[in-house]
Amino acid sequence: MRGMEKKQVEDILKLASKFEKGGASNTLKGKILATLFFEPSTRTRFSFESAMKRLGGTCVGFSSIEGTSVKKGETLIDTVNIMSGYSDCIVIRHSKEGAAKLASEHSSVPIVNAGDGSHDHPTQTLLDLYTIKKSLKNFNGLRVGICGDLRYGRTGRPLSIALSNYDTEISFISPPQLSMDKSTVKYIRDNGTNVKEVLKIEDVIRELDVLYMTRIQRERFPTEEEYLKFSGHYIVNKELMNLAKKNMILMHPLPRVNEISVEVDSDPRAKYFEQSRNGVPTRMAVLYTAMKK
Amino acid sequence: MRGMEKKQVEDILKLASKFEKGGASNTLKGKILATLFFEPSTRTRFSFESAMKRLGGTCVGFSSIEGTSVKKGETLIDTVNIMSGYSDCIVIRHSKEGAAKLASEHSSVPIVNAGDGSHDHPTQTLLDLYTIKKSLKNFNGLRVGICGDLRYGRTGRPLSIALSNYDTEISFISPPQLSMDKSTVKYIRDNGTNVKEVLKIEDVIRELDVLYMTRIQRERFPTEEEYLKFSGHYIVNKELMNLAKKNMILMHPLPRVNEISVEVDSDPRAKYFEQSRNGVPTRMAVLYTAMKK
Amino acid sequence: MRGMEKKQVEDILKLASKFEKGGASNTLKGKILATLFFEPSTRTRFSFESAMKRLGGTCVGFSSIEGTSVKKGETLIDTVNIMSGYSDCIVIRHSKEGAAKLASEHSSVPIVNAGDGSHDHPTQTLLDLYTIKKSLKNFNGLRVGICGDLRYGRTGRPLSIALSNYDTEISFISPPQLSMDKSTVKYIRDNGTNVKEVLKIEDVIRELDVLYMTRIQRERFPTEEEYLKFSGHYIVNKELMNLAKKNMILMHPLPRVNEISVEVDSDPRAKYFEQSRNGVPTRMAVLYTAMKK
Repeated sequence: MRGMEKKQVEDILKLASKFEKGGASNTLKGKILATLFFEPSTRTRFSFESAMKRLGGTCVGFSSIEGTSVKKGETLIDTVNIMSGYSDCIVIRHSKEGAAKLASEHSSVPIVNAGDGSHDHPTQTLLDLYTIKKSLKNFNGLRVGICGDLRYGRTGRPLSIALSNYDTEISFISPPQLSMDKSTVKYIRDNGTNVKEVLKIEDVIRELDVLYMTRIQRERFPTEEEYLKFSGHYIVNKELMNLAKKNMILMHPLPRVNEISVEVDSDPRAKYFEQSRNGVPTRMAVLYTAMKK
Repeated sequence: MRGMEKKQVEDILKLASKFEKGGASNTLKGKILATLFFEPSTRTRFSFESAMKRLGGTCVGFSSIEGTSVKKGETLIDTVNIMSGYSDCIVIRHSKEGAAKLASEHSSVPIVNAGDGSHDHPTQTLLDLYTIKKSLKNFNGLRVGICGDLRYGRTGRPLSIALSNYDTEISFISPPQLSMDKSTVKYIRDNGTNVKEVLKIEDVIRELDVLYMTRIQRERFPTEEEYLKFSGHYIVNKELMNLAKKNMILMHPLPRVNEISVEVDSDPRAKYFEQSRNGVPTRMAVLYTAMKK
Repeated sequence: MRGMEKKQVEDILKLASKFEKGGASNTLKGKILATLFFEPSTRTRFSFESAMKRLGGTCVGFSSIEGTSVKKGETLIDTVNIMSGYSDCIVIRHSKEGAAKLASEHSSVPIVNAGDGSHDHPTQTLLDLYTIKKSLKNFNGLRVGICGDLRYGRTGRPLSIALSNYDTEISFISPPQLSMDKSTVKYIRDNGTNVKEVLKIEDVIRELDVLYMTRIQRERFPTEEEYLKFSGHYIVNKELMNLAKKNMILMHPLPRVNEISVEVDSDPRAKYFEQSRNGVPTRMAVLYTAMKK
């Protein structure tokens, strides 16, 4: 099976909901979290740190490899080996796929994957699921559109895999050169989920319960013309929101560049800032689960 | 009215004095302060962090925008919106004037301005006032000289405005090209304060109760000759201190380059290191006030 | 006398052992440690921070001088003067010899040296001694080999000086151009310790109780050929470990590049990761001693 176990996911979501309501502030008192960000990611790092501190714990770590032993030629395995001697849990973010798994094989403390390569970013998926559940109560019966750079983006793939464990319908919305890889599409279909692949948001927005936007990076396109030709199709503005259901929710892992116009921020269906805030209770649940084992 | 309300200032100074005497160590336990330094400032950041920790709280944040989402094109508003979901209060330092005000319009938690542009730096002004009050008991009747780069410097302007709310006399000491802007001088005079504008410290030092030095940056001058011609006039050494009153106090927001000779450090009138230390109780009072609202 | 007092060392080692067994978690509650790393050192910084947090305290600081007031021309003395106003103890790492001593002359709080120049790194020496004592119970009677860059390396010199206070025999193993300086060799001999100087690990490994490896940096050699000619002699692999005593311990301050082959990691005599972990209780003892004075 790919991704996280359904039961494991649901336990985290329940715990996150409990933590969001408060009352767990000293559960990890005296514990130290090491945050090893081999690749920078302010948002993810801060929400892990806030989560750890909300639980009463403390953090050590680095936010980029500048000035670390990695620069002196130290291997990931040695770094993890050593840091596990200084802490009770390690959060790792790395540009290489499989880094978190490799780390977990050499650590005496639990490893939490905060994103490796374009492979996986499980706590992002968990907070995405948490946001959907909080707004729409149930995953079954949902029609979810995932839009943007589905090929190289880190968030769309694991979210669609997690949703395929429920009775959902998924629409992948992207330019052809950034479409979801065939293997993932097949996996999701084999899991019993109906998948559509479309070019434009307009093609599906009327039927969606969730529209999940992601960034399209200019550098993915061979020429500026091609970028401009496509990027216009992947911007959510007021006009487009007028076509959507009254209770559709609009999500984005952030940071956004221009995929969602600022004018949409005040629409009650815009959930991306709440989604970002949900990172704290979700990561509290992940850290608690890792350290209470 | 420009600057902070007189009453608000006096409340902070009273609270700071209480905190300096001790006994408030767990007041902000469980609270998280986000320190967003879009522009680096070690001293200010450290004293905010120390203040927060002295109150029992914790901090997350960045010390420069390297490796943050700002580099991915995220707007200040989005950053603030997101960070306010991770924290209970945000301290913001930014190179652009008005950044703190803009931030406060988009944050669900209190914003504390830790300096924006050459506009304002209110907690520096508060600790400057705290230092003066601690040494000289009263603002009324004081003659204060403010010396250095009054045009582009961030500290002299708001300090002089704050002092103009009391019965003080202010001497601005600077080269003509770095003099205080006319609008500020007019505002202070209209506020009932006597203002002198002089070229040299010698012109006024005999009568001063406070001499507030600031850095003059070489790059403000068109030529090296012009810099050398002026900079010599703005250095406080033993000789100059001999002209000053026995109970004058010498201040500097630090870091200094050569505006105050090291030989002066042992003079009991040299208050700049104590002034820097006063940043902790003053910022404790600011953070406590912001988060207890 | 060079280095630390024997009595002082033994007190720290005893306290470290007590801390390693647990039960001191809130001893430094409310205290703030300032970590001033003018030169980056992830490992040392993290283990100091972990030590402080294990004792219930908190940290502020910088991990490199990028973005600090040092870049604006502030002197070490001013930085220390100011930081001592924000904290209860300062840990300082600096590229210049004597920096920690200079700092301690201008600080109102205790200074802990976390390495200055190639001069000294006393907490590394303490954790090295702690590791030896933990494994081998006693310093008297030990034969210790110290291998690698003994000239410019920061760890071999103070360790050999500390060991010369006991009834030990020391073998310095290095290429001639990186040999231990004559003055240190003389000092150790005058202290009553038998010293051997050899070229290869093979020359002494059979008799050693401790083999302490250090990194040899490529840039120490005038040509690539010379580097390759020598570096091969200073790699510990399984073959070499087969020559060693059954209870010899293999140490390294880390990070390693290739001085110890990964195949040796699973050998029970490989103590370098445990040695690194020992940095936490040792530094807890150092911080506790500094702040309880």
